[in-house]
Amino acid sequence: MTTFPPPDFSAPAFADCPDARFAPAPADGVLPEGFFSTTNLPTFVRLNGRWIPPREPRMDSGLVLDSAGELWVREGRRIKRGDMVAVGDREDGTQGIFVQTHMVPHGADPDAFTFMSSEVSREKPIDYAHMARLLIEEKERGGYPIWVTGPALVHSRARSDMSWFIANGYVGALLAGNAVAVHDIEASIYGTTLGMTNTGEITQGGHGLHMRAINQVRAAGSIAKAVEQGIITDGIMFECVKHKIPFVLTGSIRDDGPLPDVITDALEAQDAMRRHAIKATMAILIATALHAIATGNMLPAFVALPDGQMRELPTICVDSSEFVVSKLKDRGTHQAFGVVTNAQDFMHILRLYVERELESRGASPVTRSAAAAR
Amino acid sequence: MTTFPPPDFSAPAFADCPDARFAPAPADGVLPEGFFSTTNLPTFVRLNGRWIPPREPRMDSGLVLDSAGELWVREGRRIKRGDMVAVGDREDGTQGIFVQTHMVPHGADPDAFTFMSSEVSREKPIDYAHMARLLIEEKERGGYPIWVTGPALVHSRARSDMSWFIANGYVGALLAGNAVAVHDIEASIYGTTLGMTNTGEITQGGHGLHMRAINQVRAAGSIAKAVEQGIITDGIMFECVKHKIPFVLTGSIRDDGPLPDVITDALEAQDAMRRHAIKATMAILIATALHAIATGNMLPAFVALPDGQMRELPTICVDSSEFVVSKLKDRGTHQAFGVVTNAQDFMHILRLYVERELESRGASPVTRSAAAAR
Amino acid sequence: MTTFPPPDFSAPAFADCPDARFAPAPADGVLPEGFFSTTNLPTFVRLNGRWIPPREPRMDSGLVLDSAGELWVREGRRIKRGDMVAVGDREDGTQGIFVQTHMVPHGADPDAFTFMSSEVSREKPIDYAHMARLLIEEKERGGYPIWVTGPALVHSRARSDMSWFIANGYVGALLAGNAVAVHDIEASIYGTTLGMTNTGEITQGGHGLHMRAINQVRAAGSIAKAVEQGIITDGIMFECVKHKIPFVLTGSIRDDGPLPDVITDALEAQDAMRRHAIKATMAILIATALHAIATGNMLPAFVALPDGQMRELPTICVDSSEFVVSKLKDRGTHQAFGVVTNAQDFMHILRLYVERELESRGASPVTRSAAAAR
Amino acid sequence: MTTFPPPDFSAPAFADCPDARFAPAPADGVLPEGFFSTTNLPTFVRLNGRWIPPREPRMDSGLVLDSAGELWVREGRRIKRGDMVAVGDREDGTQGIFVQTHMVPHGADPDAFTFMSSEVSREKPIDYAHMARLLIEEKERGGYPIWVTGPALVHSRARSDMSWFIANGYVGALLAGNAVAVHDIEASIYGTTLGMTNTGEITQGGHGLHMRAINQVRAAGSIAKAVEQGIITDGIMFECVKHKIPFVLTGSIRDDGPLPDVITDALEAQDAMRRHAIKATMAILIATALHAIATGNMLPAFVALPDGQMRELPTICVDSSEFVVSKLKDRGTHQAFGVVTNAQDFMHILRLYVERELESRGASPVTRSAAAAR
Repeated sequence: MTTFPPPDFSAPAFADCPDARFAPAPADGVLPEGFFSTTNLPTFVRLNGRWIPPREPRMDSGLVLDSAGELWVREGRRIKRGDMVAVGDREDGTQGIFVQTHMVPHGADPDAFTFMSSEVSREKPIDYAHMARLLIEEKERGGYPIWVTGPALVHSRARSDMSWFIANGYVGALLAGNAVAVHDIEASIYGTTLGMTNTGEITQGGHGLHMRAINQVRAAGSIAKAVEQGIITDGIMFECVKHKIPFVLTGSIRDDGPLPDVITDALEAQDAMRRHAIKATMAILIATALHAIATGNMLPAFVALPDGQMRELPTICVDSSEFVVSKLKDRGTHQAFGVVTNAQDFMHILRLYVERELESRGASPVTRSAAAAR
Repeated sequence: MTTFPPPDFSAPAFADCPDARFAPAPADGVLPEGFFSTTNLPTFVRLNGRWIPPREPRMDSGLVLDSAGELWVREGRRIKRGDMVAVGDREDGTQGIFVQTHMVPHGADPDAFTFMSSEVSREKPIDYAHMARLLIEEKERGGYPIWVTGPALVHSRARSDMSWFIANGYVGALLAGNAVAVHDIEASIYGTTLGMTNTGEITQGGHGLHMRAINQVRAAGSIAKAVEQGIITDGIMFECVKHKIPFVLTGSIRDDGPLPDVITDALEAQDAMRRHAIKATMAILIATALHAIATGNMLPAFVALPDGQMRELPTICVDSSEFVVSKLKDRGTHQAFGVVTNAQDFMHILRLYVERELESRGASPVTRSAAAAR
Repeated sequence: MTTFPPPDFSAPAFADCPDARFAPAPADGVLPEGFFSTTNLPTFVRLNGRWIPPREPRMDSGLVLDSAGELWVREGRRIKRGDMVAVGDREDGTQGIFVQTHMVPHGADPDAFTFMSSEVSREKPIDYAHMARLLIEEKERGGYPIWVTGPALVHSRARSDMSWFIANGYVGALLAGNAVAVHDIEASIYGTTLGMTNTGEITQGGHGLHMRAINQVRAAGSIAKAVEQGIITDGIMFECVKHKIPFVLTGSIRDDGPLPDVITDALEAQDAMRRHAIKATMAILIATALHAIATGNMLPAFVALPDGQMRELPTICVDSSEFVVSKLKDRGTHQAFGVVTNAQDFMHILRLYVERELESRGASPVTRSAAAAR
Repeated sequence: MTTFPPPDFSAPAFADCPDARFAPAPADGVLPEGFFSTTNLPTFVRLNGRWIPPREPRMDSGLVLDSAGELWVREGRRIKRGDMVAVGDREDGTQGIFVQTHMVPHGADPDAFTFMSSEVSREKPIDYAHMARLLIEEKERGGYPIWVTGPALVHSRARSDMSWFIANGYVGALLAGNAVAVHDIEASIYGTTLGMTNTGEITQGGHGLHMRAINQVRAAGSIAKAVEQGIITDGIMFECVKHKIPFVLTGSIRDDGPLPDVITDALEAQDAMRRHAIKATMAILIATALHAIATGNMLPAFVALPDGQMRELPTICVDSSEFVVSKLKDRGTHQAFGVVTNAQDFMHILRLYVERELESRGASPVTRSAAAAR
């Protein structure tokens, strides 16, 4: 096991450091204003010109100098009125307290002890306002945002929100699998997905409904023809057809059917996806590990601008666990920004924030009527 | 390994069953209207008075009778035009097809093959409209909804939504731990939680801010006094104090500080929680395994009404994974209804639906002004 | 909100019920031997011929009759010496206590209040001995166990355990994707997977190694030829080739390369998988949602035996979260038995139990030498 | 949105860079030996002295120079025999190819494009041999490893493995909650945990068994007395009592009972835990968010050695999801090393590796007889 030495306090950097300053605790269990808050890293306090490590180190506590001149790390609640407690907020020695941050193991940030340093966490706030503005800007500048979605989006009621984004010009292309279209079309024809209603009830005989939906589209010949023939009357695929938004449905070994539009050869399917990935100026990946990582594989981390400058390609990855986002990053899509939530809720709030932002800018009539119709 | 026999087709129940009916496939890869959609369970088809199990069983396929009189389970895409395919939608033999559902192992529903039969799943739709109506009805009838929350709610911006529910009369009592109040108060004083801003940035020196927030309240003597003294000026605890909504803060071994209001003895804390659990007419448990299960332990599954009737005690459990809800049920709180999502998003959408429902009923002036102020 | 009445205690079923029996608590905080342990369901206690609901219901407590004749639900720790506490262990009224279990909402088991009733949970024990015996029996009876695996199995050191199962005759066929073979072959050629060593270190330039591995096999023409040419010298694919165990590698849109053996058309790939699914007598699905659900789609829930009897088709699904197993069941593979653990650990312990079981039966020389060589 | 410029290729660092070198593809779909494998970052290739960005950037592909002098990023499978493909493995320009890694956004490693860079992932191998050696060394040097465990460990059969570690001298102190001891004692007395047998069966009337177990220990007065009186005859608490290994059981609001040994005041409980944390030379945190974070709060990240040197305090955190480990790190315990697996399996394999390591060193008679008795 490797060991490491304490800092070399004879180094010039420490020459001008003062002794630490102490202030009395104003009451039992109350630390003085400006108290130094400890970390779990090796810590040294300058007393009479010598750097002393306090005893019983732990984080989130005070540094107490007892009457015998002994220095302790002690929780605030255990402080007594009048106890001398170190004050300061710098960890670099300039206030007489030095924290040996370079010891931090396992490649963590070497410069500071911080909380909440993980890259992806459900505990981090989601900045919907920022994402809404990005999306509106992409639309305004004629960008090409690609949406890559899994079937969880259609199981739940996010279907109508996704339809709204398509109808209102926020989708450059939709990349998905057979299941997204199957569930969406089952919902249009029968009002269910996998036989479950949109409030979560199981219907009698429902397990065959997705097969009947597929069969109707196979009989029609294509999704576009099924829209023309009035078989499909609303939803994600309907809006794509109506607004001429390109979609790529790629096949997988899980597919029932599949629908006639599905590209069943994986390499042809990659080529079809890549034709959109090359043009992408933003990517929104929702509730799909397979399609998200496939897209990440073929997506540059940047967008080249006409003037030779570059900018990051905003890549938002939404999933109910941290795992998919970490996996995407672990396969090289470092620019992915993770949003850990339920796909249905993500869609609903993102739409809400886009609508709010548009309202604050003065919404277009189209958007307003769409909002009214919801 | 246990085996089981095929059904006894000499039984009276099968006496009147007809032969299965077949129809020709209208095109290659297209099944006839009304085709029978298979399951993975033992299946028997009546042909010339005999019950025959088709070959190569699988789900989501058709039943094809070939020219040699052999019966196959075959995927729709492999059907040829003119193939004879069984039609029907009943699995009880009355259309000549019998599915042996009682074989279903491991205690699954014995009466049907269904999809989406799991109790808790992120794939199920969340009925926010229903929850919003429940909450409004509780308020109208003078119910006592208890809210039990974990700190994830405060890390994110759900803090302002929670404050709104308290301010607008939807909270009978708040049960939480030290951390909820600490993060909420850090947010009020410093604008951060654990040193992270509400858009997720880490602040310099931020790791000590929650300790400084605690110290200020300890110096003031209580949360209510810190509100009086103008130290805490907004947020969850502020609204509780302002609107005299009772709260119980229970201690744990993870606590920093703790705040002066925290009940540090676990048994006293249970007694304090139970005083509210006894009165509860609804329970909303958000982002906390510890407090949710503790509350579930002491919550009846029902509410006794004045007339001697009873009703279920609506218990909503929100978490980012299915695990906490399943765990809660596994400890006996069977009535818990699981919502698998991010706490921040849950709060935001639930509030939105409550506001929409109120608008559709004609909102009270108080609520409208609150909405305007957001 | 629906309400329900208390039981009709005038019904004949209740005619012979006795009054509840009470015994004194032997000490403060200690319940008498045989105390009745409460649930959270509506409960009625017969006192002097009348059925009374106790006050303040909750689970895991005792029923106390106070000196005023009032009946309370009270935690054991709050009992005082001499308190009269109900005794009994039946909930059907025959000991004077009736629990209204039929009220249990949301389709839970109507017959009993139980803990740990969820179908899949990481908290349940994993019966490795049982699985090991199933696998050995399959081998002995000449069964056809199909193994369906995701790449997580190869990232970690489960690779050598999987190789062992193939080499020792426990694998009828291997169904997987391009990535499983790519990582396995990268490990054979370069000792890494995705550039990571088998102790988790990242290697310099490692991000290209899987591409170089693929390129070598493409140059050789097939995996079998790469084995022949000495390019691939150990691992999963090596053992399959060496022992002539059939494998199906199906393509996906995520694939790099792909390897020459990969079936890139999803429908051809389904047909290839199904040729093995039809023969399967057991299925082991490890660390793959895509391939597990694809296999589940085409797998009957039962095995038809030569004598016309049937038995369940044992289907084990291993994943690090409950989600994949629940999803598999939600798509109709109800017979799946979930094991919530890390794939590497699963493989290692399963092999260990198979080895132990063989040792206890007197292992074959082949197996013993293989064990010695590990 | 911020933009960034391409590198300044007039800088001295680029003065000596050669043109990139190209080699012909040996066959359709096969790249030449030593091909350059692309990333998704801005990339520039030197051709005739000029640095050119290739078109259609993506990762995991080759760089192809077509006959018109145009440079493309192209997947290996799309390469034709004779296509000129860039060769090299350096990204710093010294082989005529420069990758602008400093563009990598969101604080990712600025020096390299890598896979598998996440800190905690179920896809990483678990180095049991290393952990086993650490544990044996701790025992040999008289260290003080503290074990902090949640109840999942006792639900499953890891109970006997934990007992083994205690009995064989690998545990300095055990820190846990009421539930660990309750389940362990229920298992000793009734053979169940929460009424579930160790193969996962639910027993009749089982929901009250943990209450009866608690009641017996409360009647005896303490766990040690219950051991003395022969009520508890095996398991974790039994071995602690028998081998005089100190344990701290801390109370929580979820507790049934609690057992007489439980410290119900959270602050007293923290003090009791800290007395062991101060002495700790290693920490093993298994299947508990609450106790792991509580311990992490009071644990230094390092051990001070007698000679003034320091070493990292090995901290292993085992959980079934990445979340708990990330949370622990997000609260400052950066030194935690995450193992994402099932607690039962972790315990079983760790014990196995300890036994193997001891065997390879020549095990002590005590250990060998323990192993024989299993």
